[in-house]
Amino acid sequence: MAAVKETDTVILYDPEKEKKYFLNLSLSKGKFNTDRGEIELESLIGKPYGSFIETHKGFKYIILPCTVVDFIMHKLNRLTQIVYPKDAAFIALKLNVKPGDTVIESGIGSGAMTAVFAHIVGENGKVISYEKREEFIKNALSNLRKLGYENRVITKHKDIAEGFEETEVDAVFLDVREPWLYIHHAYKALKTGNMLGILVPTVNQIIETLKKLQELPFMDIEVCEILLRKYKTVPERLRPEDRMPAHTAFLIFARKLPQETENGSL
Amino acid sequence: MAAVKETDTVILYDPEKEKKYFLNLSLSKGKFNTDRGEIELESLIGKPYGSFIETHKGFKYIILPCTVVDFIMHKLNRLTQIVYPKDAAFIALKLNVKPGDTVIESGIGSGAMTAVFAHIVGENGKVISYEKREEFIKNALSNLRKLGYENRVITKHKDIAEGFEETEVDAVFLDVREPWLYIHHAYKALKTGNMLGILVPTVNQIIETLKKLQELPFMDIEVCEILLRKYKTVPERLRPEDRMPAHTAFLIFARKLPQETENGSL
Amino acid sequence: MAAVKETDTVILYDPEKEKKYFLNLSLSKGKFNTDRGEIELESLIGKPYGSFIETHKGFKYIILPCTVVDFIMHKLNRLTQIVYPKDAAFIALKLNVKPGDTVIESGIGSGAMTAVFAHIVGENGKVISYEKREEFIKNALSNLRKLGYENRVITKHKDIAEGFEETEVDAVFLDVREPWLYIHHAYKALKTGNMLGILVPTVNQIIETLKKLQELPFMDIEVCEILLRKYKTVPERLRPEDRMPAHTAFLIFARKLPQETENGSL
Amino acid sequence: MAAVKETDTVILYDPEKEKKYFLNLSLSKGKFNTDRGEIELESLIGKPYGSFIETHKGFKYIILPCTVVDFIMHKLNRLTQIVYPKDAAFIALKLNVKPGDTVIESGIGSGAMTAVFAHIVGENGKVISYEKREEFIKNALSNLRKLGYENRVITKHKDIAEGFEETEVDAVFLDVREPWLYIHHAYKALKTGNMLGILVPTVNQIIETLKKLQELPFMDIEVCEILLRKYKTVPERLRPEDRMPAHTAFLIFARKLPQETENGSL
Repeated sequence: MAAVKETDTVILYDPEKEKKYFLNLSLSKGKFNTDRGEIELESLIGKPYGSFIETHKGFKYIILPCTVVDFIMHKLNRLTQIVYPKDAAFIALKLNVKPGDTVIESGIGSGAMTAVFAHIVGENGKVISYEKREEFIKNALSNLRKLGYENRVITKHKDIAEGFEETEVDAVFLDVREPWLYIHHAYKALKTGNMLGILVPTVNQIIETLKKLQELPFMDIEVCEILLRKYKTVPERLRPEDRMPAHTAFLIFARKLPQETENGSL
Repeated sequence: MAAVKETDTVILYDPEKEKKYFLNLSLSKGKFNTDRGEIELESLIGKPYGSFIETHKGFKYIILPCTVVDFIMHKLNRLTQIVYPKDAAFIALKLNVKPGDTVIESGIGSGAMTAVFAHIVGENGKVISYEKREEFIKNALSNLRKLGYENRVITKHKDIAEGFEETEVDAVFLDVREPWLYIHHAYKALKTGNMLGILVPTVNQIIETLKKLQELPFMDIEVCEILLRKYKTVPERLRPEDRMPAHTAFLIFARKLPQETENGSL
Repeated sequence: MAAVKETDTVILYDPEKEKKYFLNLSLSKGKFNTDRGEIELESLIGKPYGSFIETHKGFKYIILPCTVVDFIMHKLNRLTQIVYPKDAAFIALKLNVKPGDTVIESGIGSGAMTAVFAHIVGENGKVISYEKREEFIKNALSNLRKLGYENRVITKHKDIAEGFEETEVDAVFLDVREPWLYIHHAYKALKTGNMLGILVPTVNQIIETLKKLQELPFMDIEVCEILLRKYKTVPERLRPEDRMPAHTAFLIFARKLPQETENGSL
Repeated sequence: MAAVKETDTVILYDPEKEKKYFLNLSLSKGKFNTDRGEIELESLIGKPYGSFIETHKGFKYIILPCTVVDFIMHKLNRLTQIVYPKDAAFIALKLNVKPGDTVIESGIGSGAMTAVFAHIVGENGKVISYEKREEFIKNALSNLRKLGYENRVITKHKDIAEGFEETEVDAVFLDVREPWLYIHHAYKALKTGNMLGILVPTVNQIIETLKKLQELPFMDIEVCEILLRKYKTVPERLRPEDRMPAHTAFLIFARKLPQETENGSL
């Protein structure tokens, strides 16, 4: 049975009030206080996930693990628009990211996409994240630390107009305002045959990005968007929720071809 | 630079005709024939991905790696409806599947979801797949072998009405006609606090599944569907494609609570 | 040039603040007050639509006509969930409603669907609206009066469990909790070959409605939903709005066959 | 009870085979032949809709009215992409089209939008349709004649680069390749306060159109798209259809302001 580690982010769940509290044990020290009493946070460490813990007033909470989706949706500190799980999951799969891979991304944003890449590349993989703004790096690393993923991520405080320092990486992901300016750099960094992913919020950006992709040796160029529609979970009156996100981002994918092809030239 | 291995599935890409051929080198032996000449398949082994190879007539093909999405969409032999990448990616992320995990699924179908789980759990993880129909197991294993993932998958030719043999697994995924009959078994197999995923095509099945989930100690019950909309990649006339899949499946998620809670009892 | 009539609902538009005020001239009497001065409402009558009118402080407003969509979205007094224009427009067209038609609906709700039917049947048509709850009739009629459509609508304060009093009507529309209980009444009221429309919010209601429709002599049974996605109107950064309605209602349509057919019997 | 007129388009429905035949009685003369026998078409005239008619072999067909949606989807002769009912219904309602209105459209296409406008403006209204290509006019008029709507439509074989000949019309609808070139003409033709509708298939066209609309005195500028998702009508296994149209067109709406406003100038 998995036990709580001192660096974990855990969920304390109050089953009566059906309320969740997200706590990172390396950062939150001392006592956790609610109107139902206190819990000594250190006492959580070593307890098996799923076990009960009592406040000093005798109320029971349940210790639950925090998934990467829980973390992104509820605990991630946001300085920017984030990449939502519906998009992040699809991006990671389309880019064929897997344990042990080396992935480049830029920028780091608030670290949501970084977290999903780090989650999948595992302890033997690396996410190399280029970001111009130091405060974003600092915030994203703080988020990644709470997930225990900081050792899987290398941040580079650089302007990618100068290019990427790596070559032969397994995947490249661009989430920047003008991705078309950096696609040739992404091309150089990528393994031939591997996938580039690009995220943009506007159709104007799709247009510019497509033009550039079509000038370079890329194939399998795709543009898509992913819509997630939730349902109310009342079985007697099953129906979709009233509102949903209409738009998060457009996703663009392309596969690197070797240079001497008809598909374009660098 | 990654080189072609003798068990790999590769893409041979004809850059002039913009045509792709998917070949598994452990199964396809001898010569690959097109109207542009022959290629000795054995000669591919050891070549770096992204390199060119010539037919005996002097036409050039490019050797490209086959991603798990490529494989599912183009090479997977289908005996059943499959779990599509848009759904599979989201399921794997919501179930928090990661390198080293042990995941139970039932049934195996044609192995598409199995492939995505195997892709992410990696060499140190396991996908345990329960399936009643032997021909499905055989076909799915043949598919997984072409991806090089057969060692990550344990198939069990069993009726899950008898329950799962494992406990404390990291995630459980049900893709069966009447999932509500097996949710209590899924509950027993799962680590407390971890996620159950269920896929059903009809709203009637959602209704029955929700009723059962609400009787048992589960929380965070969610129902959703994912729509993928592609765009034509002509930058001068950017517009969505004319048609899209309107429906593949509804996805249901729930998190296991310990037994002595108010949320339900076994 | 169309001139303002004393019963009209008009929009007073402040072009500097880009703000709209909806006013019904038969109900709102005396002065219209804003922080930019007063307008004597009677002075609007007879003015051409599109003309300017000044407050006593010299600020200019524009007098604009209020479309039926404007009215439903901004001025309709709602006691109930309403039928939204995206659905109402499609329902009216599918039911083939046209000038001069007689349409039955039940219930009246807040009168949004009634307004769209009345808009299209025109002065020579009739909307007969059955409603059990008197306060809904009163409110809906007040809404319809502001649109100038009260003479096109006959309300009947009756329980449709007793059936409809009309036969040979051009279209029937049901927006009630348990439409399956009244479909045989709708059948009797409709012209043979003409269309029945039903609106329900939940899938459980679709299921019950379909079962009943399939027992009776109906053909062309269809179930659908309509999604309206808006875009932000910034040409330099064109993108969908962030959120949208995920669900308003499911729409069901069927065409009445004569009784002696294989399709079912009354 | 409505009776078949000699100019009607009717549906002959074979209830055993569940098959529909669309026939226009002014064009189709003589005998209607199927493998189940012949029907003298003239014998349909005067029969009430919904009645049965027998072939000379004794098989029964049902005479059903053809709705405007039936006609557009099944009988309209298409030389162009058409405006689909889901879009046409919403356009007509947003443009506030009603019995007696005068509506300008350009181009006529295959007459689908024309038919919906003509359906709603009724016998006392007019649809004035500008079209450069004579073969489109000819084909659209042939379609409209089968619906009995030819007297409600005035076609003008002109290039709208020269402007519209009408002023003070109730609504203007543009479905042309470069609508931004003609918006000032649409502005002049429209009643102040009334609505302009524009249909374009690509996002590039939205961008150009928005730029122009924002230069002129328009308000309430909106861009949207409408998605219609159908369900399989099996109540025991209710689910959306497998595929759906992903895109037909983007719809743009704007309301004409008088000239001396801050919103733009002509």
